[in-house]
Amino acid sequence: MTFELTILGSSSAVPTSKRNLTAHVLNVHERFFLIDCGEGTQIQIRKNKIRFGKIDHIFISHLHGDHIFGLFGLISTFNLLNRDKDLHIYAHPDLENIINRHIEYFERSISFKIVYHHLNPKVNEVIFEDDKVKVETIPLKHRIPTCGFKFTEQPYLRNLRKDVVQIYNIPISKIQEIREGADFMNDAGELIPNSRLTLPPYKIRSYAYCTDTAYSEKIVPIIRDVDLLFHEATFAKSMKKQAKLTFHSTSEDAANIAKKAAAKKLILGHFSARYKDVSQIINEAKEIFVNTFSAEDGEKYEVNLERQES
Amino acid sequence: MTFELTILGSSSAVPTSKRNLTAHVLNVHERFFLIDCGEGTQIQIRKNKIRFGKIDHIFISHLHGDHIFGLFGLISTFNLLNRDKDLHIYAHPDLENIINRHIEYFERSISFKIVYHHLNPKVNEVIFEDDKVKVETIPLKHRIPTCGFKFTEQPYLRNLRKDVVQIYNIPISKIQEIREGADFMNDAGELIPNSRLTLPPYKIRSYAYCTDTAYSEKIVPIIRDVDLLFHEATFAKSMKKQAKLTFHSTSEDAANIAKKAAAKKLILGHFSARYKDVSQIINEAKEIFVNTFSAEDGEKYEVNLERQES
Repeated sequence: MTFELTILGSSSAVPTSKRNLTAHVLNVHERFFLIDCGEGTQIQIRKNKIRFGKIDHIFISHLHGDHIFGLFGLISTFNLLNRDKDLHIYAHPDLENIINRHIEYFERSISFKIVYHHLNPKVNEVIFEDDKVKVETIPLKHRIPTCGFKFTEQPYLRNLRKDVVQIYNIPISKIQEIREGADFMNDAGELIPNSRLTLPPYKIRSYAYCTDTAYSEKIVPIIRDVDLLFHEATFAKSMKKQAKLTFHSTSEDAANIAKKAAAKKLILGHFSARYKDVSQIINEAKEIFVNTFSAEDGEKYEVNLERQES
Repeated sequence: MTFELTILGSSSAVPTSKRNLTAHVLNVHERFFLIDCGEGTQIQIRKNKIRFGKIDHIFISHLHGDHIFGLFGLISTFNLLNRDKDLHIYAHPDLENIINRHIEYFERSISFKIVYHHLNPKVNEVIFEDDKVKVETIPLKHRIPTCGFKFTEQPYLRNLRKDVVQIYNIPISKIQEIREGADFMNDAGELIPNSRLTLPPYKIRSYAYCTDTAYSEKIVPIIRDVDLLFHEATFAKSMKKQAKLTFHSTSEDAANIAKKAAAKKLILGHFSARYKDVSQIINEAKEIFVNTFSAEDGEKYEVNLERQES
């Protein structure tokens, strides 16, 4: 039951020799969610040994080229590999036309269906949900309509303690309600309290992806207590003016958001290509929020499975 | 006076973890010509430490995605870097609209002018010429209109031998005609034969880029005696049928062309992603044309400057 983020690209606007353009993959129980798709994403997917066939959902934060120019090649590759499963793309409505024009000219036809989910980046709403995970939008503050995404595991049931099914002769039909918290009456009419039968459930894990955005406290309630927060820090704090002008964040902005939201861990990225060494940005953020890391292409961040306390 | 090819990408259609999509850079006397521009080209340009500002001419063989999807990001990067020099793009006429639509949506405006040179891939013609180099099209045989490109240095003049200007008191006004082969009459009325004054000129160097294409002997007269021949070999010889069907070449096709054209060196590339190891393809070609190499991302092929014999 993996919950693991892979950074595919960590540069903003322009790639560098060490940083590709923005893309993340979140593995939630072997469902692989692709978030943004800058140029080179399909190459990074290959390099990180993520199987194309595992990707069914792509979330696009906004329609700036550095977040989507990898889609054309990725779709082309899916087509060459004769993909037949639906591909779901969650994005600003304009993307549908842009991709359709490409497909018409470059692919003629494709072997799979693309299901477009048009986003309204102004509201916080659930845009995907299945039995394992829920995805909601995070309205952000950028030059064009932009939203982040929060991935939250669905609640876990309590786990049966070892051997209780045999010890108390529990019929299979009762297991679900016991895992939901019920006590169990055995054949002798004896009531076994749930605490003897089960262990507390696992904690729900969560990841919030916030780029591109200026400092915006409005996102704090949405991302509160998140395990993993990715927040852009395009600039060091000395470039506050430039950040404001371009609707991006500084190291301090990102750290303040992480602190206010009581995130467990902060990952900074979307670094301006002017920074050959991003340690300055990371250190500035650490002064406000200690548990800060820099996004590095190919790095993975796993959130471990832990039990709730009771 | 460099004449050096850098391979930026060597995979066909789909990139692999080791091979990017097609793009070459030819350095002719510090003029950098970009040939094709698959996804990830701007990243490869960075990794190979080629300066963006040195690239003024881009030659596009044909409008399949794996040869052009890197253009959008490259143009965007040029714009972000506030390029002001004209950018010349030599391609099928359709590319102009495709790029214009992208610029309209993603860039709004750009800081430089793109000069489009519409190619007619059916004819062999000179499409660029300056004092150092001449570029001509090579009609190829593919599923859509496609042409290769041959780069040929302009003829060199003879070089003055050391110290002759002082020894014979040659006025500067005479140097050009002596380098063109004239003898020189000195003040004493003595005729100094050109052979005493000059060394033979350097050999003209040339590079031919032939992808994507089925086997086509028609190109042989155009590429005859070329120093460096890049020819696609998407498939090993066992996949002759598949090559024919998709208008691509096998190892044998490429080697036969190199042999018939008496090329000095053959570089194979545009390998199908099915080949994790391309040594089979290279060995098959070597049986026909010994001086065969495999294109590898980041590799450079320099053609050394040599004097003609007389």
